[in-house]
Amino acid sequence: MRRIRLRVAYDGTDFCGWQIQPDKRTVEGELDRAIGELLKVKLHVIGASRTDAGVHALGNVAVFDTDSPIPAEKFCFAINRYLPKDVRVQSSEEVPPDWHPRHCDCRKTYEYRILNRPVAIPTESRYSWLYHPELSLSRMQQAASCLVGTHDFKSFCSARTDVESTVRTIYHLDVEREENLILIRVEGNGFLYNMVRIIAGTLVQVGEGKIAPERIPDILSSLDRKQAGITAPPHGLRLVEICYDD
Amino acid sequence: MRRIRLRVAYDGTDFCGWQIQPDKRTVEGELDRAIGELLKVKLHVIGASRTDAGVHALGNVAVFDTDSPIPAEKFCFAINRYLPKDVRVQSSEEVPPDWHPRHCDCRKTYEYRILNRPVAIPTESRYSWLYHPELSLSRMQQAASCLVGTHDFKSFCSARTDVESTVRTIYHLDVEREENLILIRVEGNGFLYNMVRIIAGTLVQVGEGKIAPERIPDILSSLDRKQAGITAPPHGLRLVEICYDD
Repeated sequence: MRRIRLRVAYDGTDFCGWQIQPDKRTVEGELDRAIGELLKVKLHVIGASRTDAGVHALGNVAVFDTDSPIPAEKFCFAINRYLPKDVRVQSSEEVPPDWHPRHCDCRKTYEYRILNRPVAIPTESRYSWLYHPELSLSRMQQAASCLVGTHDFKSFCSARTDVESTVRTIYHLDVEREENLILIRVEGNGFLYNMVRIIAGTLVQVGEGKIAPERIPDILSSLDRKQAGITAPPHGLRLVEICYDD
Repeated sequence: MRRIRLRVAYDGTDFCGWQIQPDKRTVEGELDRAIGELLKVKLHVIGASRTDAGVHALGNVAVFDTDSPIPAEKFCFAINRYLPKDVRVQSSEEVPPDWHPRHCDCRKTYEYRILNRPVAIPTESRYSWLYHPELSLSRMQQAASCLVGTHDFKSFCSARTDVESTVRTIYHLDVEREENLILIRVEGNGFLYNMVRIIAGTLVQVGEGKIAPERIPDILSSLDRKQAGITAPPHGLRLVEICYDD
């Protein structure tokens, strides 16, 4: 058996998220079906990030095991023939048989897009959060700098989680503006449930003046979700890439 | 009666183009219906550019006449309440009662987006043409420079047109690359039917090596549509803005 690793991009709009669920359209479900049809077997991929309903990805990662003689790098094109247009395998390669996408050290990069203007632009609406009040970039950057480093991010995690530790490391958290579009780009060694969306929602409320940037250290140390800001909607978020140390 | 000018953005994916047609979903039809519902009258907007099915816009222009006391700049927000999500009026203002969006000197800017890579990216697919063979940017730029200026563009116009003159002026025609995305941006005093899509298709075939950039002057002077390249698909095209000299 060989283990094949896929890099997967998708438009999350019409998916109930990554994780397979009965009678729901999910990215994992489409991959299982497509690879199953290609190889004429029943199989399940193992994914790296279980993105929420509506969240997009440029480079989520998944693996599956196969005896097929198809060369590893050709799986990308072969699987795409069986996938709907809103999922596309970007590349495929062989990894060691015990390699697991959730049990390896990695750096994940997410991007959150905010369209900061009074009126929507239809060609941006699927992939950005329309937010009308004018946001202060410098306030958002000041708050973002307090979140970089190794912290207990319990305040930035939705209650319905059961992970052992809520300590994570953020390597970079950049806030940039391109005309009306504010881009939040965050790189870390892992993210808690809804963590990036709560960071984005909090930074937006900081930018609007509803939360003082100086309060971020207190919000972190409170370990209380209610102290942080709102959870930004899913459609502004995209998983950009996952870099493994291998 | 006051004449109100609207700047209109739309995602063309689910529209049969701008121009109203019986039993088809069109941008003009949606605007007529929305403004009619707002003002409780039956009216027809006059549009500047009749974009094709699938073509997007950031700033098409339309006018309508009204006796309503709504302040001109408020129409934007009022009309949007009656529009579907894929059309949004960006701004509204009063213009002289005889001002006509197709009878005034203007500069139109279009952008054509080409994703030049082997595999689609789902979050880019609605708004760019996926083209696999590697394109030479310098060849495309060389060909583009030959199209700038005042020319008879009959070779770059679909046969089914009945305009009096096929002479137009292109002020700028830039071809740029941002990673895998090639952007063609063209500004002119008007464009013939399918002209930007034929220019884009021709430049792509030049970039691929199928048409020599040196042939562009001969293609222009042939006045023969068959000498130019293919018509690029509509979804890569967007009308960026229309600037009037007023």
